[in-house]
Amino acid sequence: MKILNSTSADFQEELANLLAFETVTDASLIATVDAIIADVRARGDVAVLELTQKFDRHPAQSIDELFISQDALKAAFDGLSDEVAGALKLSAERIFAFHQHQVDDGFRFTDSLGNQLGQKITPLDSVGIYVPGGLASYPSSVLMNAIPAKVAGVANITMVVPAPDGQLNPLVLAAAHLAGVDTVITIGGAQAVAALAYGTASIAKVDKITGPGNKFVAAAKRAVFGQVGIDMIAGPSEVLVYAEGEAADNAKWLAMDLLSQAEHDTVAQAIFVTTSAEQLQAVETAIESALARLPKADIARAALKNRGALILVKDRREGMAVINQVAPEHLELSLDDPEAVLDDIRHAGAIFMGRHTPEAIGDYCAGSNHVLPTSGTARFSSPLGVYDFQKKSSLIYCTQTGAVPLAKTADILAIEENLEAHALSARYRHQAN
Amino acid sequence: MKILNSTSADFQEELANLLAFETVTDASLIATVDAIIADVRARGDVAVLELTQKFDRHPAQSIDELFISQDALKAAFDGLSDEVAGALKLSAERIFAFHQHQVDDGFRFTDSLGNQLGQKITPLDSVGIYVPGGLASYPSSVLMNAIPAKVAGVANITMVVPAPDGQLNPLVLAAAHLAGVDTVITIGGAQAVAALAYGTASIAKVDKITGPGNKFVAAAKRAVFGQVGIDMIAGPSEVLVYAEGEAADNAKWLAMDLLSQAEHDTVAQAIFVTTSAEQLQAVETAIESALARLPKADIARAALKNRGALILVKDRREGMAVINQVAPEHLELSLDDPEAVLDDIRHAGAIFMGRHTPEAIGDYCAGSNHVLPTSGTARFSSPLGVYDFQKKSSLIYCTQTGAVPLAKTADILAIEENLEAHALSARYRHQAN
Repeated sequence: MKILNSTSADFQEELANLLAFETVTDASLIATVDAIIADVRARGDVAVLELTQKFDRHPAQSIDELFISQDALKAAFDGLSDEVAGALKLSAERIFAFHQHQVDDGFRFTDSLGNQLGQKITPLDSVGIYVPGGLASYPSSVLMNAIPAKVAGVANITMVVPAPDGQLNPLVLAAAHLAGVDTVITIGGAQAVAALAYGTASIAKVDKITGPGNKFVAAAKRAVFGQVGIDMIAGPSEVLVYAEGEAADNAKWLAMDLLSQAEHDTVAQAIFVTTSAEQLQAVETAIESALARLPKADIARAALKNRGALILVKDRREGMAVINQVAPEHLELSLDDPEAVLDDIRHAGAIFMGRHTPEAIGDYCAGSNHVLPTSGTARFSSPLGVYDFQKKSSLIYCTQTGAVPLAKTADILAIEENLEAHALSARYRHQAN
Repeated sequence: MKILNSTSADFQEELANLLAFETVTDASLIATVDAIIADVRARGDVAVLELTQKFDRHPAQSIDELFISQDALKAAFDGLSDEVAGALKLSAERIFAFHQHQVDDGFRFTDSLGNQLGQKITPLDSVGIYVPGGLASYPSSVLMNAIPAKVAGVANITMVVPAPDGQLNPLVLAAAHLAGVDTVITIGGAQAVAALAYGTASIAKVDKITGPGNKFVAAAKRAVFGQVGIDMIAGPSEVLVYAEGEAADNAKWLAMDLLSQAEHDTVAQAIFVTTSAEQLQAVETAIESALARLPKADIARAALKNRGALILVKDRREGMAVINQVAPEHLELSLDDPEAVLDDIRHAGAIFMGRHTPEAIGDYCAGSNHVLPTSGTARFSSPLGVYDFQKKSSLIYCTQTGAVPLAKTADILAIEENLEAHALSARYRHQAN
């Protein structure tokens, strides 16, 4: 695992190299995805079925067989153990409660001229949520995508999840039941994105597609952006854990927090930043011993080798600078008083405060969303939220007299912009007609 | 101009044809734009200068000459007539006032376990605003992009505006002064987008790029999405004017409102929807006579022929259905009681209510934003706003005891998802350690 020191001359270069991660979107990938989208637009259900048989080796012989009934969803939920059902329900309730705080009611005000202005909020009519299949098929992702849409008031939620060889994780179906997903279709890849974006005879077109996927899904989302809305294009997951030399017996906690990120993927990123050389050393040692316990030790070890780092900083100020430079998806502040640094943190998807708040709690049941901006995009992006499933319309309502000064202003500026019809349209409202 | 009747058998098909507008993003355009982006990334300032000399025929001999000083911006503002300066200032003040209502303060709450949850709002560090040059170089667009960023608290606003042959509209510079733009660079096209997204020696990288542009700009924004944030990808502008047969002397107002959209562009869209056959006829006649007065009659006539329509609907219910199907960028409700239909309108970028609120007022000085979702994207997109220049970070702060039930839940679900390190990381927080 790389060790960086903020006092070394090439620290900035080393840090930049550590963070460099560019998704390769090569021309052949784009061409493949464009061809799939064109095929789905041209042949609809037939193309979706064929591509699903081909790429997912799905045994379905008709498009109908790719739909999962509400009864099957309920049966999956009813089949859970009490312990798992209870955990899923607690998660769902807390996600629901957190996201209630994001509901926007819009606004109205009256200006000094007596005109009404405002903003009206409307839920999207329909959304598609993409849930990865196979190994990375997580029930928590179903809840995290579907519940904000529900809270927003979206009437039609379609979930797509690929079922390689026709196999599906029953927990994913149970979560869809719990979240109130309206339609579940076992399709994936660019063909699923295309079907959601353009619709087919059997699959209703949606207004927006959210949720992470592989490079084909990412390329397809980029391609259909504009035809439908999309959320972010997700990269590998990352965590940055920041500490300031607490007692050494904390090291095994911090090590496991880093490993909980590293076990996701060989390109996942786990970065530990500390002001204490002793703590850095202790965490490095703790990571080695913890790896021995992990079934996914090979993945975690590769991730740590590829993209992990232990960074020693001089002081808190430098620590905060590193955090803001990384703009981590997950930031853990293992401090006694994390509130004290909050104002200095400008860029992070989610901030886990204090030593009793590991990222794992946020992944499942804190209530906040686990779909977060990756790869430094926390500089300009937000967690998935209710705001992704609502949109705004401006309201402008002028009175006859209130319109006069505004129409005069519009008239003057329209003339300057050589837009005569704009000027005349405004002039009718400020001149006798 | 096409006339559609909602009672005709093929109305749905005709309406779909009317609304069909797909931006062609052909492979050669993408290849051209990708090559420009790669060139700017490889050669930086040198590439930006060469491409600006080539595409804009700009006479600059060094990159420095492409920067406009703050003194030059102030001089442009000081050179305005009192009338124009006053109109621009009133617009700016009203845009500022409206957007103040969009500021999000985030939230904090304590759950029943004593844990703190919340959302922290942070402005973006830096944004780039793209202002089209040449004929469509509008000072109002500068205000509409820059002021929400200012209200959000963005510290660094860079504006790019191409200057074909080195020529610039002084009003655009005056507006940049008024809005407090930090840096103005006379570059455009894909090279400007690339420079803002990746930075060069002279041009600072930004976090997000907003503002409309031509097809090269649109393709470049799509390509750099992820590296930086972008707003929407704009299509041609549209208005839908809805009326219910008010007095016929209203026809010339309605006609001019439609023409104020049609004069923008030969692919701009103006649609009139009414419940009254008489009014439809009167508006058609009024359009013809109004066209005679317009310097841009040729453009407007082409737009009306290409994409305009007069639609007769049976009743209000059908009118609302057509509105929601179109999801217009601008919706004008020329009704005595527009409030009565507001709840039935699900999709529109901006809603202009009553006969004294023409779109032209919203284009300049109502205060609401004129950067609005086009081509039906109001189904899932919002007007440009303060929320485009702020982002959110989730906050999770568990107490030692409050963490216990959550850590247990995370432990259970992580085991189900085969994520052992997640489970162990959570387990440290619910077991004695």
